[in-house]
Amino acid sequence: MSTLPDRARRLTVVLTLLAVSAIVVPNVISNLQTVQKARAADAKRSRGHRSPLSFTDDGQLLQPRGYRRWVYVGTPLTPNDMNGGQAAFPEFHAVYINPEAFAAYEATGEFPNGTVLVKELVSVATKSATSGKGYFMGEFTGLEVAVKDQTRFQSEPGNWAYFSFGHELPLAEQVGRQAVASCSTCHGASADQDYVFTQYYPVLRAAKPAK
Amino acid sequence: MSTLPDRARRLTVVLTLLAVSAIVVPNVISNLQTVQKARAADAKRSRGHRSPLSFTDDGQLLQPRGYRRWVYVGTPLTPNDMNGGQAAFPEFHAVYINPEAFAAYEATGEFPNGTVLVKELVSVATKSATSGKGYFMGEFTGLEVAVKDQTRFQSEPGNWAYFSFGHELPLAEQVGRQAVASCSTCHGASADQDYVFTQYYPVLRAAKPAK
Repeated sequence: MSTLPDRARRLTVVLTLLAVSAIVVPNVISNLQTVQKARAADAKRSRGHRSPLSFTDDGQLLQPRGYRRWVYVGTPLTPNDMNGGQAAFPEFHAVYINPEAFAAYEATGEFPNGTVLVKELVSVATKSATSGKGYFMGEFTGLEVAVKDQTRFQSEPGNWAYFSFGHELPLAEQVGRQAVASCSTCHGASADQDYVFTQYYPVLRAAKPAK
Repeated sequence: MSTLPDRARRLTVVLTLLAVSAIVVPNVISNLQTVQKARAADAKRSRGHRSPLSFTDDGQLLQPRGYRRWVYVGTPLTPNDMNGGQAAFPEFHAVYINPEAFAAYEATGEFPNGTVLVKELVSVATKSATSGKGYFMGEFTGLEVAVKDQTRFQSEPGNWAYFSFGHELPLAEQVGRQAVASCSTCHGASADQDYVFTQYYPVLRAAKPAK
């Protein structure tokens, strides 16, 4: 059996180690908790239950921001010169989906609640370039948005609502939703999947999981 | 002064706490280090000095992955029916830039070392839809890549090299770079900025900081 001074020395060492641990451990745990919270928030977003859009109290949609960093899905083109000078949607339509909804679509093959599709309209600048004859993008001219929201748009067909910020600059800063006849009827009748024209969006078709 | 049994009990408590700490602390620190390493790697990537591409030892470029989540910049269209049935680049060209290079471009207005542009070719599926007459995307058919690398391509014009994985499926898994005359000559002569056809990429023009 060791002597008392021996025990006292060991106790001092142990208490010192414990004191150091008492300082280090909470710090490390706190850092880790911050990271875990951020990850949980990311995971929540990626489940697609949170819309990247903002609405006013009376239901107007504010012009979305940041969508040029979303996932691009395809570019239909309805040039004015093929539509009697007045295309319904002039002219290139660069279409994006919010990344959270894209991730959910890759996993399930369905558009989750909170899906947002942005259609940015772009003029035709020229029909001839060094790469050949065709159509080449000019300037941004318009912006339209489709939103799937089972709560906010529970009475709309498929829970989709449609917003147009205009086809000429300057675009509106906030707009109310379109009448069902303006968009939804055509989307419901002709779009391949859940009011979305997936037949013209190869990125979405490629992302859809095999059955 | 406390009795010996008291001290022994306290020592037992302290040793137990220390043992628990000895198990918990390294785990927590190890987790935190993993997260910090991943963050440092992200930060390094976001400085734009690291290419998202992989090359073989003899300089062949492996087919890139994940570019459909990069930043879309524009879609030139050179349809076969406007080019004698044989467009040089059939037909839609969906063009992406790696996000790190896009972030640098937003800050500086220049394409940084490590810039990658991917051009994904897509067929025309139809020329008529409910939205009007025009051109509508079908299936992916080809893939081409331009890379700016001051070290690897120091002898190429502008330090850009060009790679084509083909215009028909199946695409090549890895390819060598194109001859200067195949791509660089035309890009150098006709592209608006640093061998990039920014005149047809409204997203890049909009992202460029004002002087």
